[in-house]
Amino acid sequence: MKNLVVAQSGGPTSAINATLVGVVTYAKKRKEIDKILGAKYGIEGVLEEQFVDLGERVQEEADLERLSLTPSSALGSCRRKITIDDEHTIACIITILRKYHVGYFIYIGGNDSMDTVNKLSAYCKKHKIEDLQIIGAPKTIDNDLVHIDHCPGFGSAAKYIATTFLELERDCAVYKTKAVTIVEVMGRNAGWLTASSALARINGANGPDLIYLCENPFVLNRFISDIKEKLKEKNSVLIAVSEGIQDEEGNYLSAQKQKHQVDGFGHSYLSGVASMLAEEVKRQIGCKVRGIELNIMQRCSGHLMSKTDLIESKTLGEKACECAIQGKNGVMVSLIRRKNSPYHVDYLDVPVEQVANYEKKVPKTWITENGNDVTEEMIEYLLPLIQGECEVEYKNGIPIHMTLF
Amino acid sequence: MKNLVVAQSGGPTSAINATLVGVVTYAKKRKEIDKILGAKYGIEGVLEEQFVDLGERVQEEADLERLSLTPSSALGSCRRKITIDDEHTIACIITILRKYHVGYFIYIGGNDSMDTVNKLSAYCKKHKIEDLQIIGAPKTIDNDLVHIDHCPGFGSAAKYIATTFLELERDCAVYKTKAVTIVEVMGRNAGWLTASSALARINGANGPDLIYLCENPFVLNRFISDIKEKLKEKNSVLIAVSEGIQDEEGNYLSAQKQKHQVDGFGHSYLSGVASMLAEEVKRQIGCKVRGIELNIMQRCSGHLMSKTDLIESKTLGEKACECAIQGKNGVMVSLIRRKNSPYHVDYLDVPVEQVANYEKKVPKTWITENGNDVTEEMIEYLLPLIQGECEVEYKNGIPIHMTLF
Repeated sequence: MKNLVVAQSGGPTSAINATLVGVVTYAKKRKEIDKILGAKYGIEGVLEEQFVDLGERVQEEADLERLSLTPSSALGSCRRKITIDDEHTIACIITILRKYHVGYFIYIGGNDSMDTVNKLSAYCKKHKIEDLQIIGAPKTIDNDLVHIDHCPGFGSAAKYIATTFLELERDCAVYKTKAVTIVEVMGRNAGWLTASSALARINGANGPDLIYLCENPFVLNRFISDIKEKLKEKNSVLIAVSEGIQDEEGNYLSAQKQKHQVDGFGHSYLSGVASMLAEEVKRQIGCKVRGIELNIMQRCSGHLMSKTDLIESKTLGEKACECAIQGKNGVMVSLIRRKNSPYHVDYLDVPVEQVANYEKKVPKTWITENGNDVTEEMIEYLLPLIQGECEVEYKNGIPIHMTLF
Repeated sequence: MKNLVVAQSGGPTSAINATLVGVVTYAKKRKEIDKILGAKYGIEGVLEEQFVDLGERVQEEADLERLSLTPSSALGSCRRKITIDDEHTIACIITILRKYHVGYFIYIGGNDSMDTVNKLSAYCKKHKIEDLQIIGAPKTIDNDLVHIDHCPGFGSAAKYIATTFLELERDCAVYKTKAVTIVEVMGRNAGWLTASSALARINGANGPDLIYLCENPFVLNRFISDIKEKLKEKNSVLIAVSEGIQDEEGNYLSAQKQKHQVDGFGHSYLSGVASMLAEEVKRQIGCKVRGIELNIMQRCSGHLMSKTDLIESKTLGEKACECAIQGKNGVMVSLIRRKNSPYHVDYLDVPVEQVANYEKKVPKTWITENGNDVTEEMIEYLLPLIQGECEVEYKNGIPIHMTLF
């Protein structure tokens, strides 16, 4: 019997704890696993030997259920990047895992976390360490991982965005005066989240009227003329834009791009596209304009999770644990869509080296020719992912969350 | 038998259609009322004779239920202010109402709408028009009307804010690095909505750590030192600020106060307090900072309505209709809290002239002495208002809304 360590990394999502619950649930059933340890704050918790005994901490079925519906990494997270020549850090991590008799390490995260999984498993291979299985479990609201049909966490964020656009359309439609509402949606380099705003129309509503993804160069003049056209037809124009839209030269449009402030991965912070464009529309068109940033609410609105996302996220956690016990190494658990109606996915695993440091963008063919909307194929891809509502437990008028430390 | 006209005015809320449903439901039962007409876009719809036959449009019980759960004024709204010497407009409205054989006019709105009700009923009194009852039904997420315990629409906004702060706290807590998150909450002159962020703590969570209402002068140096103190204790500091905070000289702090752009009531638009303060914290403290604006999501998140608010909003609509049939004039239906546990309110009506153009601010005694939090009395006042969840109907993964035109 060996111990298992699980950790969470990167930006949190609403469903990332469901994957953790999947790991814990499966591990508890298997005799190969002794202790189930959660490392606090990603691999930093491993390096600092800060563990939570999850077997003890989460005993009841009700606790597991509550944890799976609690948004944002309950074990904490980090954005620590292990560079290719940082063999010392990698060696430290492996040494500590072995010191704690760990046979299975599961890292739940996005692109950068899969890079960590890749480096750790490559190190083990190189040093012929065969009794430590290192597995990646995906998550990212950005939906930009390759070799997976869609990413856990994305469906819940998409459901929040679709619902919010539906509600914003209701709000914006109340006045008879001409008005433009520009809503900025997360996504640095991939427009999946922005595209999901189109789902707000699925039951017959109008908005959003215009959708601009970061996959296409953003042409301000075309944007202004698109709005002018729409304003001829209707009073209220609702627009979705990706935070990461870039001009034809590839420069980010954001007014407040903070060049000198970057996170651990060297990404510059983006914000303020909606307010910048709102100013521009006010200047050029002169009507009432509002800029809205959905901000981190789109990744932590656990009260509005997609049941499909919840189930898949949990299952991927179980599969990650299963892979580890099967002796697999350096793989990411993944899912492949077999059918759309009825929707059906199969679970598989893929070599993590094929995932790390790649990015899946929206195919250009899923953006309409005029560049201001998405196609029917995009809707067909997105729609199954937001299906189903979760039974969130409320007490005193707000949801009950489960914390681990 | 006479006809009834109902209209909605001012900023929309999540519960304003519940009041409309209350009016329609009650009116349908009463033999005194023939047609139930909805004026489009507030009194502008009366002036332009644009009516929806609500008796025909909303026939099924399921439609009424769906409409009550649809956020934002389904009849449309306006911000048209009738000035005191605009007797011509008032005369036009009255003439049109009489032309349509209207015996009952119910105006659902906030402070400014109650002013319209006041002017119309005063005109009727002055001109001895006794067969036209004019009644106000309150709504405002700002909770700033006098002679009412709390305002319909506020409870749902407060529930959204409390839930969102709970979720934001989860999100902000994931990293070990020092970070400050500043969340701007609606409220020009009254801090009720900002205060409701404190409800996020009701089940044991920590955040928000600091709360600044617009009732107190905002002192930047004290704000910075409050944050520094909190950062000594913990990594993530979550802060709620009213959009309308003012410095000691009474100037709005908003960086983007648009002096030249005012709405029909002469209010200047406010926005950008969170981002302005975030810049200041970055400059003075230097840690990671995020500014978040809850924006109009706080008034239109119909998927997260308070059941208590829904029931009260609907009942006030019924009571408004009852008052009209009883021959009352120039009153606003209201509610008074009799008990807190178990929570119980009674319904009454108050002369609208006592309501129009007054504003209810947060009592200074409900703000803590150091000015950065609210007291236990505030929590006791707020807590019953967010109780209960509504059974929102979902189709294709998003809520179903009901539109009237």
